[in-house]
Amino acid sequence: MSVLVVGTTALDSIRTPYQEKPKLLGGSASHAAVAASFFAPVSLVGVIGDDFPAPYVQLYQEHNIDLQGLERKPGRTFFWEGEYEVNMNRRRTNETVLGVIENWLPDLPEPLRRKPFVLLANCEPKLQLHILNQIHDPRFVVADTMDLWLNIARDDLLALLKKIDALILNDTEARQLTEEDNLPVAIRQIHELGPRYVIVKKGEHGAMLSGPQELFLAAAYPLTELVDPTGAGDSFIGGLTGYLAEQGGEIERHLRQAVVYGSAVASFCCQGFGLAATEKLDKVRIKERVAEIENFVRFELPERPETNPRHR
Amino acid sequence: MSVLVVGTTALDSIRTPYQEKPKLLGGSASHAAVAASFFAPVSLVGVIGDDFPAPYVQLYQEHNIDLQGLERKPGRTFFWEGEYEVNMNRRRTNETVLGVIENWLPDLPEPLRRKPFVLLANCEPKLQLHILNQIHDPRFVVADTMDLWLNIARDDLLALLKKIDALILNDTEARQLTEEDNLPVAIRQIHELGPRYVIVKKGEHGAMLSGPQELFLAAAYPLTELVDPTGAGDSFIGGLTGYLAEQGGEIERHLRQAVVYGSAVASFCCQGFGLAATEKLDKVRIKERVAEIENFVRFELPERPETNPRHR
Repeated sequence: MSVLVVGTTALDSIRTPYQEKPKLLGGSASHAAVAASFFAPVSLVGVIGDDFPAPYVQLYQEHNIDLQGLERKPGRTFFWEGEYEVNMNRRRTNETVLGVIENWLPDLPEPLRRKPFVLLANCEPKLQLHILNQIHDPRFVVADTMDLWLNIARDDLLALLKKIDALILNDTEARQLTEEDNLPVAIRQIHELGPRYVIVKKGEHGAMLSGPQELFLAAAYPLTELVDPTGAGDSFIGGLTGYLAEQGGEIERHLRQAVVYGSAVASFCCQGFGLAATEKLDKVRIKERVAEIENFVRFELPERPETNPRHR
Repeated sequence: MSVLVVGTTALDSIRTPYQEKPKLLGGSASHAAVAASFFAPVSLVGVIGDDFPAPYVQLYQEHNIDLQGLERKPGRTFFWEGEYEVNMNRRRTNETVLGVIENWLPDLPEPLRRKPFVLLANCEPKLQLHILNQIHDPRFVVADTMDLWLNIARDDLLALLKKIDALILNDTEARQLTEEDNLPVAIRQIHELGPRYVIVKKGEHGAMLSGPQELFLAAAYPLTELVDPTGAGDSFIGGLTGYLAEQGGEIERHLRQAVVYGSAVASFCCQGFGLAATEKLDKVRIKERVAEIENFVRFELPERPETNPRHR
């Protein structure tokens, strides 16, 4: 099954304590679309300005990403300049130029309105809602968000939450959204806002998936070198959604695996600047890493105890 | 097989945002010994003053803890008064009285010198070394430590690291010890200081076990209510070591399970003040929680990929 990805298509200037790279291909939709492309056919919905380099369009094409929803407009492409601290755990935004994405609310071409999997990568909730409202009867809708939208577009975000199947956000954002410090409790409250599935990204500490049937705790791949974490969250949601689409729609059955596949792709993303590491991936290497993660977390139960719910 | 536990036997006054409890039974050895007692025979080595309440001695006895190494001396029992912030992630020490443990370096009774499992719970490294040097040919030695000793007793700690099988410390301490921010890299450096096994506690994010054969990433049990985290780390090392002792000494084979058993006991510890929740435990409930944890982390590999090490 195929995936529609909407979000930002951007130029990122990134500084880490070790290197600086100007105007890389970035944006939530770029990372998510390339990550998803290893598993399923992807259609990208985004907007670029006249400064968007041709090789970046080629990169999408090399991953067989359908670009009928990629609009080119006069003006600047969305631009982000950010800087990471020594431990890569915190980043600072130095400059943001919205450019052509400001107030951009496109009408989707008809074929894109029939995509079964809809990935609303991080962008203004108003744009996420605008896209979602044009899709006819989607099978699975997953959305990402960020702290900014919790602050300045909370009402739109709350409206979005009622219409999606899965929300992906990080632990700080989960606490911010609910004003609840305990993560499992915060997750419960997010379910009450709408999404059947809540997936919390915890960076190097992995991810937590909560659904009607289960709680799943996923480990992150332990990286000994972090080159650039930009786009890791977008790669996570891209890998996860692409994997689910590949499996053909049996969500419940494949969701744990999908979270691990998303983690695996996200870990590769951190090993290069921008999309440098992700774009060179293939499914074999992703599967190898998933198998490594499985090996890192596996343990044998010595014996199955008699469960006695009264004692819990 | 049996376990010798040495560490602090203390009176703890604990304040959380919700409650305050004066002079509870506490100390690293108390928590570790009770946690280990669910799995194996335990001998406690510690020192108490004349203010140590009789019911606390009874609590040890009710867990069949051998007290021939528990010395009573005139003076005050080691006392700690601490306070937790709203999210329970940070604590502040308001008062510490060393009392009878200051400069206490006991000669062990002969039977205690032949214990196969030695658990050096958190206390001054000089005391840990003094005890360890009296043990004849131990089978497995595990030590805990804290930031304080990294600051004021680093040389003793480094000497200790050369003599133990496993070091348990938290992620902040691992980074502090090595001055390396990347945790997997810090762990590698700690191995070079001596211990064959390094186990890093990450609180709500679980634990990481590193050994010659493996890296194991363990999830923490997701608690919806944290009553008092005091002693969780000590319970972790106690449960872990007790479980290994119960299995009879095949360390490599049982270490992953042991980490999960330690996590399970530690999670119960956080559900009550001091030892209140831990002391009421039994093996069935611990096993149930281990099975729950296994259920939280389990996922199926859709297919085993052909591994191709060149691509890693």
